[in-house]
Amino acid sequence: MTLVSDHIEADDTRTRILVTAEKLFRELGYQKTTVADIAKLLKMSPANVYRFFDSKKSIISAVAKRLMGEVEVAAIAIAATPQPASKRMRELLVTVHQMNSERYVGDAKLHEMVAIAMEESWDVCLVHIECVTGQIGQVIADGVASGEFDAPDVPLAALCVCTAMIRYFHPQMIVEAAQKPGPTIDQMTDFVLAGLAPRR
Amino acid sequence: MTLVSDHIEADDTRTRILVTAEKLFRELGYQKTTVADIAKLLKMSPANVYRFFDSKKSIISAVAKRLMGEVEVAAIAIAATPQPASKRMRELLVTVHQMNSERYVGDAKLHEMVAIAMEESWDVCLVHIECVTGQIGQVIADGVASGEFDAPDVPLAALCVCTAMIRYFHPQMIVEAAQKPGPTIDQMTDFVLAGLAPRR
Repeated sequence: MTLVSDHIEADDTRTRILVTAEKLFRELGYQKTTVADIAKLLKMSPANVYRFFDSKKSIISAVAKRLMGEVEVAAIAIAATPQPASKRMRELLVTVHQMNSERYVGDAKLHEMVAIAMEESWDVCLVHIECVTGQIGQVIADGVASGEFDAPDVPLAALCVCTAMIRYFHPQMIVEAAQKPGPTIDQMTDFVLAGLAPRR
Repeated sequence: MTLVSDHIEADDTRTRILVTAEKLFRELGYQKTTVADIAKLLKMSPANVYRFFDSKKSIISAVAKRLMGEVEVAAIAIAATPQPASKRMRELLVTVHQMNSERYVGDAKLHEMVAIAMEESWDVCLVHIECVTGQIGQVIADGVASGEFDAPDVPLAALCVCTAMIRYFHPQMIVEAAQKPGPTIDQMTDFVLAGLAPRR
């Protein structure tokens, strides 16, 4: 029989492995961090880490999923607030930008981690992009219902909004944006909202 | 006295070096191509190549500038055609996308060349982005004058349009777009044109 407390403990160990792995990936870089390093810092055997993750690749996928998951939770919460759709849309776009900037933009080691996570876990990225696009779609649908927005094809409009925001959402584009002239995120959000406004 | 024919010949040699260098960068990759290889294929001495370009880095910068210059010429020509602004805008956006796809998206060797050109010649890229944004701004200004568009701040609107199109303009994003759901360029252009349409 598996006790509930065993599940909780297993979840807790899994989370501790991920938090420690992320810390080491950020400090030493992904390539230089070994599963043995992670185990050592946690005072456990590498074999115990392998009980939870079969490879370093699985660890970085799970780290990426966890980081993206936090953004998804925030996006879902904002989409559900009882505010006008345009206000929710602005808050959602700005929050995703800020959270992605904090998570993925920093020094060379962080870059390495993000680039490898995106390459190794592209399926995880795709699910994340779909989730954020889904929340944007939810806000657009609400705006159409209330007459704030005009979008005959809501899923398509959500894809267009997400595409328009690549400069502010995509880790690598956020980095490049610092070297390239462009609108502020508020100005770009105005442009996107104009694209959703009812036509005359 | 310098004869006009000397100038023409020098220009011609310069162009031949660039065309040959681009060919070798695409075939062998940038790292594996030497100035000696370029000279050999042109049946000239490396010293003669160095008369025109002081380093391989200068050559790749000039190759990048030439490739981008062709796109600029096309953009300028489209912006100047006597068509409705929205029609010119669509043609301009689609043409830049198609020309960039042809130029910068292909196999791993071409990727290496583009990545290095963007890194080594970021200033050349910036001038290019400014030129394309300028042509987009020209079309927006014409559209505002004719009542087709509404844009209180034309340079800002041009930056927003360019930013919205990163998925279709940026070499690396064009590559990534193949693996990621998103609007077609025509759908995205519709969204951008909606953002420029007069408000009610």
